[in-house]
Amino acid sequence: MGTVEDLGFAAVDHGRVLRKGFPEVVYCEGKTARQVATIALSITRSGNVLLATRANLRQYNAVRNVVRGARFNPVARTIVANEKLVVERGTGTILVVTAGTSDLPVAEEAVETARLMGNPVELMPDVGVAGIHRLLSQASRLQRASVIIVVAGMEGALPSVVGGLVGVPVIAVPTSIGYGASFHGLAALLGMLNSCAAGVTVVNIDNGFGAGFAAGLMNRERPSLKQRHGKRP
Amino acid sequence: MGTVEDLGFAAVDHGRVLRKGFPEVVYCEGKTARQVATIALSITRSGNVLLATRANLRQYNAVRNVVRGARFNPVARTIVANEKLVVERGTGTILVVTAGTSDLPVAEEAVETARLMGNPVELMPDVGVAGIHRLLSQASRLQRASVIIVVAGMEGALPSVVGGLVGVPVIAVPTSIGYGASFHGLAALLGMLNSCAAGVTVVNIDNGFGAGFAAGLMNRERPSLKQRHGKRP
Amino acid sequence: MGTVEDLGFAAVDHGRVLRKGFPEVVYCEGKTARQVATIALSITRSGNVLLATRANLRQYNAVRNVVRGARFNPVARTIVANEKLVVERGTGTILVVTAGTSDLPVAEEAVETARLMGNPVELMPDVGVAGIHRLLSQASRLQRASVIIVVAGMEGALPSVVGGLVGVPVIAVPTSIGYGASFHGLAALLGMLNSCAAGVTVVNIDNGFGAGFAAGLMNRERPSLKQRHGKRP
Amino acid sequence: MGTVEDLGFAAVDHGRVLRKGFPEVVYCEGKTARQVATIALSITRSGNVLLATRANLRQYNAVRNVVRGARFNPVARTIVANEKLVVERGTGTILVVTAGTSDLPVAEEAVETARLMGNPVELMPDVGVAGIHRLLSQASRLQRASVIIVVAGMEGALPSVVGGLVGVPVIAVPTSIGYGASFHGLAALLGMLNSCAAGVTVVNIDNGFGAGFAAGLMNRERPSLKQRHGKRP
Amino acid sequence: MGTVEDLGFAAVDHGRVLRKGFPEVVYCEGKTARQVATIALSITRSGNVLLATRANLRQYNAVRNVVRGARFNPVARTIVANEKLVVERGTGTILVVTAGTSDLPVAEEAVETARLMGNPVELMPDVGVAGIHRLLSQASRLQRASVIIVVAGMEGALPSVVGGLVGVPVIAVPTSIGYGASFHGLAALLGMLNSCAAGVTVVNIDNGFGAGFAAGLMNRERPSLKQRHGKRP
Amino acid sequence: MGTVEDLGFAAVDHGRVLRKGFPEVVYCEGKTARQVATIALSITRSGNVLLATRANLRQYNAVRNVVRGARFNPVARTIVANEKLVVERGTGTILVVTAGTSDLPVAEEAVETARLMGNPVELMPDVGVAGIHRLLSQASRLQRASVIIVVAGMEGALPSVVGGLVGVPVIAVPTSIGYGASFHGLAALLGMLNSCAAGVTVVNIDNGFGAGFAAGLMNRERPSLKQRHGKRP
Amino acid sequence: MGTVEDLGFAAVDHGRVLRKGFPEVVYCEGKTARQVATIALSITRSGNVLLATRANLRQYNAVRNVVRGARFNPVARTIVANEKLVVERGTGTILVVTAGTSDLPVAEEAVETARLMGNPVELMPDVGVAGIHRLLSQASRLQRASVIIVVAGMEGALPSVVGGLVGVPVIAVPTSIGYGASFHGLAALLGMLNSCAAGVTVVNIDNGFGAGFAAGLMNRERPSLKQRHGKRP
Amino acid sequence: MGTVEDLGFAAVDHGRVLRKGFPEVVYCEGKTARQVATIALSITRSGNVLLATRANLRQYNAVRNVVRGARFNPVARTIVANEKLVVERGTGTILVVTAGTSDLPVAEEAVETARLMGNPVELMPDVGVAGIHRLLSQASRLQRASVIIVVAGMEGALPSVVGGLVGVPVIAVPTSIGYGASFHGLAALLGMLNSCAAGVTVVNIDNGFGAGFAAGLMNRERPSLKQRHGKRP
Repeated sequence: MGTVEDLGFAAVDHGRVLRKGFPEVVYCEGKTARQVATIALSITRSGNVLLATRANLRQYNAVRNVVRGARFNPVARTIVANEKLVVERGTGTILVVTAGTSDLPVAEEAVETARLMGNPVELMPDVGVAGIHRLLSQASRLQRASVIIVVAGMEGALPSVVGGLVGVPVIAVPTSIGYGASFHGLAALLGMLNSCAAGVTVVNIDNGFGAGFAAGLMNRERPSLKQRHGKRP
Repeated sequence: MGTVEDLGFAAVDHGRVLRKGFPEVVYCEGKTARQVATIALSITRSGNVLLATRANLRQYNAVRNVVRGARFNPVARTIVANEKLVVERGTGTILVVTAGTSDLPVAEEAVETARLMGNPVELMPDVGVAGIHRLLSQASRLQRASVIIVVAGMEGALPSVVGGLVGVPVIAVPTSIGYGASFHGLAALLGMLNSCAAGVTVVNIDNGFGAGFAAGLMNRERPSLKQRHGKRP
Repeated sequence: MGTVEDLGFAAVDHGRVLRKGFPEVVYCEGKTARQVATIALSITRSGNVLLATRANLRQYNAVRNVVRGARFNPVARTIVANEKLVVERGTGTILVVTAGTSDLPVAEEAVETARLMGNPVELMPDVGVAGIHRLLSQASRLQRASVIIVVAGMEGALPSVVGGLVGVPVIAVPTSIGYGASFHGLAALLGMLNSCAAGVTVVNIDNGFGAGFAAGLMNRERPSLKQRHGKRP
Repeated sequence: MGTVEDLGFAAVDHGRVLRKGFPEVVYCEGKTARQVATIALSITRSGNVLLATRANLRQYNAVRNVVRGARFNPVARTIVANEKLVVERGTGTILVVTAGTSDLPVAEEAVETARLMGNPVELMPDVGVAGIHRLLSQASRLQRASVIIVVAGMEGALPSVVGGLVGVPVIAVPTSIGYGASFHGLAALLGMLNSCAAGVTVVNIDNGFGAGFAAGLMNRERPSLKQRHGKRP
Repeated sequence: MGTVEDLGFAAVDHGRVLRKGFPEVVYCEGKTARQVATIALSITRSGNVLLATRANLRQYNAVRNVVRGARFNPVARTIVANEKLVVERGTGTILVVTAGTSDLPVAEEAVETARLMGNPVELMPDVGVAGIHRLLSQASRLQRASVIIVVAGMEGALPSVVGGLVGVPVIAVPTSIGYGASFHGLAALLGMLNSCAAGVTVVNIDNGFGAGFAAGLMNRERPSLKQRHGKRP
Repeated sequence: MGTVEDLGFAAVDHGRVLRKGFPEVVYCEGKTARQVATIALSITRSGNVLLATRANLRQYNAVRNVVRGARFNPVARTIVANEKLVVERGTGTILVVTAGTSDLPVAEEAVETARLMGNPVELMPDVGVAGIHRLLSQASRLQRASVIIVVAGMEGALPSVVGGLVGVPVIAVPTSIGYGASFHGLAALLGMLNSCAAGVTVVNIDNGFGAGFAAGLMNRERPSLKQRHGKRP
Repeated sequence: MGTVEDLGFAAVDHGRVLRKGFPEVVYCEGKTARQVATIALSITRSGNVLLATRANLRQYNAVRNVVRGARFNPVARTIVANEKLVVERGTGTILVVTAGTSDLPVAEEAVETARLMGNPVELMPDVGVAGIHRLLSQASRLQRASVIIVVAGMEGALPSVVGGLVGVPVIAVPTSIGYGASFHGLAALLGMLNSCAAGVTVVNIDNGFGAGFAAGLMNRERPSLKQRHGKRP
Repeated sequence: MGTVEDLGFAAVDHGRVLRKGFPEVVYCEGKTARQVATIALSITRSGNVLLATRANLRQYNAVRNVVRGARFNPVARTIVANEKLVVERGTGTILVVTAGTSDLPVAEEAVETARLMGNPVELMPDVGVAGIHRLLSQASRLQRASVIIVVAGMEGALPSVVGGLVGVPVIAVPTSIGYGASFHGLAALLGMLNSCAAGVTVVNIDNGFGAGFAAGLMNRERPSLKQRHGKRP
């Protein structure tokens, strides 16, 4: 199931690219800058694309000391490297929709992730349900997408409306944006889980990475399908 | 501040009709059939309209033994009597909108309450956001209403969409309809409290009565306004 | 349903003033100072009143560089501009009541909002239920109001008492003021949702803006009523 | 610290009457009828007053087969026996106040408990804050009490108002009465814990027994005081 | 956006089949048997496949009185009709995996839904993580699937392990199976939302329908792709 | 019911000393230093003892500029003044027990409050249940107390053990001390509310003031008792 | 890692006895009687001890039709068979302590489990902390035990006191016994997780089986130890 | 039950080493540096090993001023002294496993604690379930351990997988590592409590100390066993 590199404090899973079609992603929260840099070096050295999420500037500075060409996106809080290794694989366009301007950092994390997995990605910001015509006026753009990620805080109602308009998978990402009783994204999370629109699935609060990755898998020509096609007469 | 009738187990507040413009309403949960009937008699005898909520058939049977002409609405679970005393007072139409068919019992409680307070009331059922055109095709009807009550379970997204379309007060009523993580209406409640549409206020889960009463007050020509008008040159 | 101005990161909903009778309001939390200023400029340029809530000083400074005459209320944390465009529309006085002195910032946000919507607004601070005579001694002032906003933290009991005294809509605003088991306003929120007084509706924790806006709608002569009265040509 | 009687499934604490001034009380929930009866017999045989709470009819029937004169209160769900052993010990009157009629079963449990501990007890039902004059008109009766128990569901606001009127201890008992977001008494519980009135302490939801017992201790001339008096010159 | 049939208590959205590629699905909870039957008739009459979820026997009996050939699955609690209209559309096999035998009812609802949308579906029951070799011994079967639905209660750990083994979308369905602190599926839900395996998205507790529907969309050749293919040289 | 002094932002309740036997207490959280100082001056000027809780150094400095002799307790975070007006009123000793050293700040707030109400107060720190003999070795000191306040974080078990040993009221104060699943005092709060020892009542998390005040009332010779005893002229 | 028997709806893990030293245990909740019986037959036929938990009488009747000598414990709700295969393996006595009589069903499940794993087990019921001397008088019995299981509802304080008295592992089992704010065992669970006594670990609410099984493992001579012993001279 | 040293603010339990086989451990959260140092001195002076947890650098500096040779572990946040007094007592090896690198601080606290109790301890980091082969490739190392501590955040699935592989006690430690809906470790905690693998017990969130201590007790030759062996013929 693939080789593992033992760094003492971490066991880097180099076999992941074979099993998942994408190398291990570094989650930076709770790691020292040095730990992040050492793992980043291990991944890039083995010839893989680097994606590190929830990174801060200190961690980025440690990474670029050892990994040439590492790039930091301060809004998305991502570090990427070896981008030239990305191969275009998506079968359609992934559309990332946000309810408000304050949801952009989470949306950016999703965009970075999906792009690095080889997908064409488009952004449609600030079309929350309080002004529903902003969304409806772009209905044909929604209907052209292959997978849609909807990022929303507060009541998290936007995925239900989008889900009612399209026949493709909708991934809902609750954000922690909101007044008191949003309880740091809980209200949006529950709203999305209870969506009355069929075809909506949900990821963790503020988890733009998870949405981008899942969208990348959904938009990929499946390995199993290739096999199946090979078996056909 | 009005007279009180001491029934031993209850202190009926006959002054409420003066302070609030509507007599005390009987909340039947946790009361014996006999207690409900005795309070109902006290209210009707003093020349007031009777509204009892959350009533069951046993309580209704006890009431109609002592109050002539009492009527039971098994969907709304309300008992009413002395309806002929209702005076039309509303300054516009109250519109009660539901997201789904399963929300009808709560909506019916709101309708009964608002009607008994003297308001014209209309019902617009099953226009949830998963099929947004059902709502949008009735936009002009929404815009003609004076106050709108929106009843929804699951993610409770409908009030936000309605609130974005109209310039009148929207009262949101979460219902306990939904799968597991609706947590008996909590998801809808939080969604409504976090509505991104301005002008939405919220009542308790399944509290059709509370919504109907508040709508009745909002739709009423205020006593204070009459006074104020009198003082103007 | 109105024009939308695309700023790249935001879609400003200039049609909102037609649908809601008030232009889009800027929620500043999670936005950069530059984003707030650009949106503020878009709103004021199109001839609308500006209201920005949850603003900080940095955001205000960015706004006043581009919007002449912008004013900051550091207690309410609001930025307003184009105030001369405000038209008096209220049909009565909106009264904002607070349980304690610590609830004033939230009350101020409600006051700013309701005033900007064209309403006469009065403030009655620090009349919490632990000294009930402070409230009762002002009963006639309560009864003169057209709509009442009650701002309270801790147990949030004040709206129930106020709601029992008056026949007009009461909007309850829970605040995050309190000891540990207030859970940042949850106790007050639940208290208000469970109010035994009819006619009380609730907004989100610390959401003075939402209360002020809803009160403004309730206190407005409804467009639909004008139609009904046949005043339109 | 007192003798213990081992019944195999239970260890009856006969020393409790010495330590606490009242014998062990039987909590019937989750016990078989036979277990309740055996414990009841052990307590009464050792010459103590019997109080069993949360009892059902089956448990009562098992008890009265073995304990002569046992009495069942179906509203309070209590079984009592050996009442003739009760000695009047209270230094004042304990007043039990309820917000509504539906709170009576919990109030009755408190009344039974406090009476059995030797206190004069009075009941003041249905004086909830939505009709505050019902309470205020009895202010002098409130002020004559030595300890006050306030039983309320829904928002649980009544203890704060009562606590603001009197200079004696107020014990608040939340009940599970209410609509959805009362969450089976949680709203009232949190409200009471956050009471802005000083001197209010709280017991568990629906725990009339706990309130009655604590009130009994507060109303008792303390053993320690007698000692202390004895030691003074 | 499609025609709506007004049944008085319901507005059947006949346009849904165009927007979503599948007709409206009837959620039976909270509806009367008569309401369910009337909606079922409206759907089948308009030439669409019928799927009704959370149905009971009474509702089924009402349906089969008016819809010929309706079939009831008592484990899945589904009613289906017009199955001959189902067109095979899936691009690969959907695999439904369960952690335990007790999760089968939810899994069955997913199977029924995905099959009715035209997908080949396989079931792999009882391979929970406490005996991980049961799962690993079927790794190649996992890797052949096009989309995987993982149904698990208790700690909900299975989707993380499955997600680590495959490069296709994994839809996690928490079930309400478990001891006390599962809190009716909350533990499994939170576990799945926090999955450390990328590519896992989540639906509501016990929502087999939602998982089956989303899997159906993911496994479908996207309409948008056909368009895009048409544009290629 | 007493006079009120209107300070614009606050309504100081000078009648509270008559109703409660102690003047209004200033809760400093959320108030400006200037507001605290102005209220402090109003209270002390009217000849009352000053107690301000949850104060910080800035608020204290503002107070001592206007109130001579004000004293700050940085552990308890209290400001007191006019201490010479305190009259010894307690009928016995109030004992404040803590489970650990980390609970001392909350205990100190209780001590300050009870002392200022005229009670003899003793402190027994760090006798948590993990070393039960520390508590048991002081059993006679426990049994001499008139009222006992038990301050504990973590699992909050100490009040149950103390409550089992004494026949006087026990006031339990949960603190926010503890590891993750203490949830800032929630675990201790729930533990205390569910105490199996009769006679335990509970105040809010970290609310040393509330416990001290309630203990002061319980330890006071009740006004009502004097009336009953006929000692008044 | 052991063989698996595929029953269609279940995959019986016959290798578990090798990995864990005890065969698979049947959790009956959510399974049909027929499913339980089929699994029970599979386990007993393969020469293993049968333990089924959370069983009801219907499930038991189905089992004893196919498994000779199956025994039902209606208090513990367990089915056992092949008891003659139990080998005594424990290195000391497991003591099961309960706070109250109502905790006995959960304690019985632990007793059955630990006994079936080959351990001597003793029961010490009803020694809750409200009468601490009941526990302390049996201190030497506590100190003789090798592992202690403490079963308690309400505030769950007993494990902390026991844990302070002994130098062996204490397994705490919260039960769902208690008044309202026990929230079905949540209060006891949180209390136990926050125990100030070192050496206490916790299992799920009402999970007597889990406690009994863990105690069995702790009390077993470890396989690894045998290896180590082999290395000794 | 052992001597207690009264430090005024603390009662140091010198008898704990006799009852528990390990001296009192200092929990530093909420204590002043001076308090920590004074307690540390008391413990070391009485000839005991010092372990202080949740310490910061200021507290460490105060300790090393008075306790010679005190050592600080900044990752584990522990202070230790008198290490030469540690006596090897463990009957096997304790293995500490982590799901990710970010869980290392909690794991380190467990390692320090178990080592100080005299156990051989090994660390196996970063073998989370998303790359299950990392764990499985070390199965024999897992099976050699005597007790296993599993530290994991996010969904906390690792203990279930480990528990399915071994026949020794597994202690699960949830950490607060994770995205939004981990709710600071709640998701992992609930996951672990609901583990489908038998033999898993749980400690508080981030409580490495508690896990290390419990593992130490489990791995110890029990005093009671020695006694028992001695008493045998």
